[in-house]
Parts: sequence; C-alpha cells; structure tokens
Amino acid sequence: MTALRPLAGGLRVSAASPALRHRSLATFPLDRRRTITSYGYTQAKSLVYSKYGEPKDVLSVHGHSISPPSGSGVVVRMLTCPINPADVNQIQGVYPSKPEMNTLLGTTEPAAVGGNEGVGEVMSVGSSVKGLQKGDWVVMKYTGMGTWRTHMAVDESQLHKIEDKTGLSPLQVGTVSVNPCTAYRMLLDFATWGFRGDEWFIQNGANSGVGRAAIQLGREWGIKSINVIRGREDKTEEQKLKDELYGLGATQVITEEELQGKGMKDQIKEWTRGGREEVKVGLNCVGGKPGVALAKFLSPGTTMVTYGAMSKQPLALPASMLIFKELKFTGFWVSRWSDNHPDLKKQTVDDILQLTRNGKFKDIPVEECSWGWDTEVSTLSAAVQGTLGGFRAGKGVFTFEKLDV
Amino acid sequence: MTALRPLAGGLRVSAASPALRHRSLATFPLDRRRTITSYGYTQAKSLVYSKYGEPKDVLSVHGHSISPPSGSGVVVRMLTCPINPADVNQIQGVYPSKPEMNTLLGTTEPAAVGGNEGVGEVMSVGSSVKGLQKGDWVVMKYTGMGTWRTHMAVDESQLHKIEDKTGLSPLQVGTVSVNPCTAYRMLLDFATWGFRGDEWFIQNGANSGVGRAAIQLGREWGIKSINVIRGREDKTEEQKLKDELYGLGATQVITEEELQGKGMKDQIKEWTRGGREEVKVGLNCVGGKPGVALAKFLSPGTTMVTYGAMSKQPLALPASMLIFKELKFTGFWVSRWSDNHPDLKKQTVDDILQLTRNGKFKDIPVEECSWGWDTEVSTLSAAVQGTLGGFRAGKGVFTFEKLDV
Repeated sequence: MTALRPLAGGLRVSAASPALRHRSLATFPLDRRRTITSYGYTQAKSLVYSKYGEPKDVLSVHGHSISPPSGSGVVVRMLTCPINPADVNQIQGVYPSKPEMNTLLGTTEPAAVGGNEGVGEVMSVGSSVKGLQKGDWVVMKYTGMGTWRTHMAVDESQLHKIEDKTGLSPLQVGTVSVNPCTAYRMLLDFATWGFRGDEWFIQNGANSGVGRAAIQLGREWGIKSINVIRGREDKTEEQKLKDELYGLGATQVITEEELQGKGMKDQIKEWTRGGREEVKVGLNCVGGKPGVALAKFLSPGTTMVTYGAMSKQPLALPASMLIFKELKFTGFWVSRWSDNHPDLKKQTVDDILQLTRNGKFKDIPVEECSWGWDTEVSTLSAAVQGTLGGFRAGKGVFTFEKLDV
Repeated sequence: MTALRPLAGGLRVSAASPALRHRSLATFPLDRRRTITSYGYTQAKSLVYSKYGEPKDVLSVHGHSISPPSGSGVVVRMLTCPINPADVNQIQGVYPSKPEMNTLLGTTEPAAVGGNEGVGEVMSVGSSVKGLQKGDWVVMKYTGMGTWRTHMAVDESQLHKIEDKTGLSPLQVGTVSVNPCTAYRMLLDFATWGFRGDEWFIQNGANSGVGRAAIQLGREWGIKSINVIRGREDKTEEQKLKDELYGLGATQVITEEELQGKGMKDQIKEWTRGGREEVKVGLNCVGGKPGVALAKFLSPGTTMVTYGAMSKQPLALPASMLIFKELKFTGFWVSRWSDNHPDLKKQTVDDILQLTRNGKFKDIPVEECSWGWDTEVSTLSAAVQGTLGGFRAGKGVFTFEKLDV
C-alpha cells in the first residue's frame, strides 16, 4: 500500500503509473476538499474545449492529476482569472490566435484550456527552479497558456513572478496583464508627451477596463482625458457612471450622442484652450461611425489606436483625415505585444501594481464566479458566455476557492 | 520722353508711377511680342481667380506689368508648369490649403494666381541677390506661389535654384516637385528597406505620375513592385499600358479586377516566395474598396500611405487589419511636406534630376497647352478643367512661348 494511498472520497493516484497521471478524474468518485496527496500529486480541474463554438456548448470540465514538479517545472494553483472578450472569441474560433489543442491533460479529444490571463500561487517547484518558491504569486508571461483551471503544471520560464505582493489582492494582480497593460502601452507608445498637464487624449468605451485604466494613468501622468461612453436611457444611471469616471480622474465625460452632436467642436475647442492644448492620441474600441467621430477631434499628425470593435463596423476613413490632417491609424494587440516584449511587460505590470499598491489604481467592477471543486460546468460556462453581452455590472472573473492543504 | 517710352502696340509704362506698376493691362491695347522694356519693366499675364468654382467659370487672364527687381527681388519667366489635380481642387475651393487672395497684381477684386508647381528662368535680379543670376532655372520652394503666369516677381528666398540644368528639359524640371517627390518620400519615409532586391511595395493608380515615378525609383533602389491599374475595355490598350509600365521597371502589373479576384492571394504569395519577401509599403491614391483590397496584401506591421482618393470613397478598414495585422494607415501631402522641409525637398529634387540626367527617369506622358501672349483664356481654362477627367493621354502642362528679348 505504499504506492497507493486513499484520499478522502476514495480517489487513488498511482505514482508509479505515468499513464494515470493525466487520467480523467471523471472516472473517479469525487467528493473531497483535498487536492494534493502527500506524494505531491495534485488533483486539478480545467475548463476545456475540443472544438470551436459558443462557450455554453463546447466548454467542459476536465479533471486530471498533476505529478510533482521536476527540473524547472512549477505547479501553480490559480487564484483569480478574468474572462476577457478575447477569451470568448478564441473559444468561438473567430480569434486569430488559436491555442494548440492536445491530449496532454488526458482528454479523449485534443483539447485546449480556456483563458489567457490570471494570477496563481506557486505550490511546489522542481529541483532546478531558482527564481520561484512556494507561496510566490505569478502571472503568465505569454498568452495561450490556458488559465481557467484550478492548477497548472508549467515551466518556470513561462511565468512572471510578482516581486512584491504586499498590499495587493489576487483580483488586482490577476487582471493587470490585459486591460491595464493595454491602456498603459497605448497611451505611452503612440504619442510623445511633455507631461506638463496641458495635453489630452480622447477615448471611447471609457467605462471599459481599458478605459478606466487609461483615465487613471492619465491622471497620474498629467494627461487630461475626453471620455466617451454610450448614453443610457436612464439618465440617472448615466450621470452615476459619468460621476464614477470623474471620480477616477476623467477630465471630461461625454456620451456618443454628445460627441457626434454639432456643438462638440466648439466645446472641445474650449476645453483645449482654443486648440492650443493638443489631443495627442485617440483610443478606439468601438469603430464604425463613433470611431470616425472620435478621430475628428484628434490634433493633426496624431494617432488613433484601435484595440476593439464593439460596433462590429469598419472604420470608414475619409482620405482627407489621412492626407490633409495626417492622422495615423493603427491597432494594438496586447497578446502579440506581450509575447514580443516579455521584459517590457514585466516592467509595465510592476509599474501598474506599484500604482495599485499606492492606492492610485482603483479596482475594476467585477462579477465574480466562484470556482470550487464541485462547481458545475454550467455555472462556469455561463460566466464565460455572458461576457460578450451588452451592459454588465462588471468584468467576469473566476475566483478559486482554496482547495489545497 | 525719357520716362515714357512707346512699346510696340502703344503700351506705355511709367517708371515714375508705382501706382501703374501692377495696373491691369486690360486697359491697354495689347498686340506685340515683346514683354520687357529697356527700363526693365516686364509685361506679364497671369491665370487668376477671385472666387472659387469650376476653372472654366472662374479663371481669367489678368495682364499686368512687373517693375525691375530691387533688393532680394527676382523676376522669373515661367517655362513649364503642370496642371495638377490639387490645383483644380484649390480653384474649386475644396482643397484645405487656400491661397491668399489679394490685389497686388492690380486686379479689381482680390485674386489668386492658379498653379503650385513649375520651373522658371531668372530674367533679372535685385542688387542684393547672391544666389541667383540671369539664366538660372528655379523651382518654387513653397506651395501656393501661383505658377500659372508668364512672369513672376518673387523674393530670392522663395526659390530653389536648379544647380545644374545640363541635359534637363523644362518639362523634366517643371514636373519634378509634386509627383516624383511624392513617390520618393512615400517609398523612403514609411518603410525601412534593406535595398537587397528582395523587398516589395504595392500601389494602385500605377500609371499616374506618382505611380510611374515610384516604379522607376523602385527599380533604381532594388525594390520590386506590384502595380495595380484600372482595367481597360480594350484589352489591347490594357496590355499596351501594362507593357509600358513593365518598360519603366514594374515587376508585376495587374488590374483592379485581378487584385480583387480570388486567385491573387496565391499569386502574390508565389511572387513573394511564399511571403518570405515582404511587401513593406502600400501607396494608395484610389481609396474605397480597391484601397482596402490593396492593404490586404501588405505584410503585417507595415504601412499604407494614402495620397489620393480617386474613387471618392472612404477607406473602410476592418478592425482586424489594425489590431491583428497591425497595419498602419496614414497619408502623405506633398504640399505640407515641401513647406515643412524645404532643404530636404531641394535634396529630393536634386536626386531625382540626377536620375533624370542619367536617363533613369523617363518623361511622363503629357498633354501640352502652349501659352503665348495671345492665347485665349478659354484655351487655358479648358486645359485646367480637363485635368480632373477620367482617362487622359497624359498630364496637362502649360508650356510658355518665349516672349522676352
């Protein structure tokens, strides 16, 4: 009986049988709160898909066991993982970056684990791991690693260690890599700033995760902001949202209708002191007519960066904007940027977390989906499915119950 | 009688009367071939407009006299001046750069002289002029100087001297500032080249003045080109045009229909050796659907530069081109560039003229409009009016008959 040890609930894992390491837990009766044996085997569950489609149709929970880490391997338990719109598009198969599907987790069909962002805590490390130890918090260095799982076996080289987690919550760290990084890089990399407090940026989707991050970064860096939100039928609600963004440091908040109204030209001229204060970058996640309307208020020669297309419409650019106003239009894809600039990503994350620690970066509103050992797949997939919906109270995040000893 | 001297035809100009210097010649009977008196007064005619509209409706010929140059002043007689589409748009009032209208030439209403490009020959210089002498050829340093006139009184500082006119024709020098400069800067300034012969650009409107210049510069610099032209109903004519562009050094010539056909993706992949050879910049003067189709064949991360919009349609950019392919879209306006970079413009002009002198830059096809003393305004304005038409045999240019002694 030395090689087989009963777990609560009767689960047995054989250390001597590699074939069993990733054997689906679906074949075991599961009813216990411990996921790690004294031999170092970890019982994990992952939210996987084997074909593209709507999350509610294609996601399933796959149980498997993870062997003790060796060499540069690390076992991480996830703490908090957001559900980003790109994650959903990826499952739908409409995202250009497609994850590799394989049977490494012991699934019958080749499968991929959903999710790209999240924070985890190191549970155990292989003998040659130098930079990480038990208890460290880590974020993913690359995209496509599949974060929606209770535990992950991963090589040390694929993780960024959070150097100082003091004063930070898993939610703050787990949601730093995509939206705040996007806002940070778009603001810094597409304009040259004097940081004298007399420069502006303009953005739509201002109440999104990226939008809120941009407002706060602008406030910290002395960059004023014109923030466009979709108008609400309920004007009290609209004003409440405006006030919320003003509270984050927005200089001006307007609705799409106001942006496209005829008085806006004069209004923005007044805000920018007759145009002497330049609007130096535009952040666009809407596209279509609202996107073009946004570009109209950029100063000549500046750049509008597109990072989303919520309207699902192309950006119909009049040639005059390109030729005579010399505006530049480009896009930002945080996944490619992260994969191409892992060191810069680490710096960016660290800088944002420092602002967070100093209370300069407010938590985003979230809708938490608690993920325990017995959480049904329907609960998890509904949280994913709901992410592409219209107005939400907050960003969907999985928060993992502590299962380990 | 020393101060008044009869000219052939009875024109008299008083050297003592500044008020008369710009007096309209419309009040004088004009019928002679000499435009300069022995006192240095030059009789000039300019194609002017006092209000915006169609060239045929608003252009008129204004006769006036130019006093001898003093100080840093220079009197230039024009040799060859092209009629560019932008010149017509300027007269129509639909161009963002509007010329100053004034009465300096003695017009009843404030007026502007048409035209922005051209080459002239220095006739006489003021006493403090150091860099120019009689017989020198000059081009305009800035836009908006009004080149459609037989003679121009201008300050030395507003002219670029052609350092070496050997082997050059007025047509070659008179048409260098707009189209060849546009092609030169768009190719060089929006991509980083290895000049190893394994890089490409793609352009539409390839048989335009800019297009032909780009083909030849590409050939000289070792940059291969995919050139898109509008298909012709007459396929013999179409093939003739293709052959003409191949003769200039085009690597590939295709029609808009071929570009948008479904086989083009594989075809371009084959030309670019499976995509290993990058398409590093796109030059777009068409816009609309053809412009977007062009952008599809750019390599990721590269730039499409728009310098015209012959389709009069906006460029409807899918967000994926911006976000996932990271393409950049911007414009080039040679007028602003010239005005902002006079020294670089001189270098560019000199470099292109050196290629021309060496036989590397073929003359563009032109439709000449000869401008003599008695040429009717209807002839001149028809040449201007015709410039925005469809297929033309060549670019409209004014060539000035030699009127001076």
